[in-house]
Amino acid sequence: MLAYKEADGTFRSVTRQVLADAEHGQGSSLRYFEVGVGGHTTLEHHEHTHVVIPIRGIGAALVEDRIVPLAQHDVVFVPSWGWHQFRNTGDEPFGFLCAVTAERDRPVRPTPEQIAAFEQDPAIAEFIRY
Amino acid sequence: MLAYKEADGTFRSVTRQVLADAEHGQGSSLRYFEVGVGGHTTLEHHEHTHVVIPIRGIGAALVEDRIVPLAQHDVVFVPSWGWHQFRNTGDEPFGFLCAVTAERDRPVRPTPEQIAAFEQDPAIAEFIRY
Repeated sequence: MLAYKEADGTFRSVTRQVLADAEHGQGSSLRYFEVGVGGHTTLEHHEHTHVVIPIRGIGAALVEDRIVPLAQHDVVFVPSWGWHQFRNTGDEPFGFLCAVTAERDRPVRPTPEQIAAFEQDPAIAEFIRY
Repeated sequence: MLAYKEADGTFRSVTRQVLADAEHGQGSSLRYFEVGVGGHTTLEHHEHTHVVIPIRGIGAALVEDRIVPLAQHDVVFVPSWGWHQFRNTGDEPFGFLCAVTAERDRPVRPTPEQIAAFEQDPAIAEFIRY
């Protein structure tokens, strides 16, 4: 289990485990993320896509311009360059599987201009953490 | 939800749902299989690999030359050309996620000679269905 990224303040209470990677012959990686109570992942976007399946607890996500509730065994697709952030909205850890390509670009965080654009939507403004 | 393959008698009580596929930009497919009580998948092998994560019920698998018990959130890797078969060993549906490459070769079933080889191992002989 790894602490997720550097402790740069953009996320809170997140751990990551790599379950399968390039050596498993699929060109993709399968990871398990767990977000503690009150925690959230980094608000970001990138060229590579995500396929996310919650398997523990409950949460919610910003996916592009929508806030979606997440429960176990939902399937969420984050398209290329779609903004996204995952939050634990329950009172136990929120865990999800996340598939990505093994080779992938680095995530990009929002500029102040993008944050200002998010703030135009009250639901998004209330949801995001950055 | 699709019936799994043709009803050729090599499997029993299996459904398949494709959760993500090539159009999701990862070169891989993520499927959900559910095996009914008393059911099993086809005994087969192929060049492409599997990463399998049970998310409902309990089961067991032949993976190469071992029988492994399976519970929720285990992670099973089936290597290239590894023989495999999944069985439901519980009293409720046994469901698992299975990742594969989007482009992949066709499964190959055991020859009578391979079956005879399996039968040399009492644990495998007792486990397999074909």
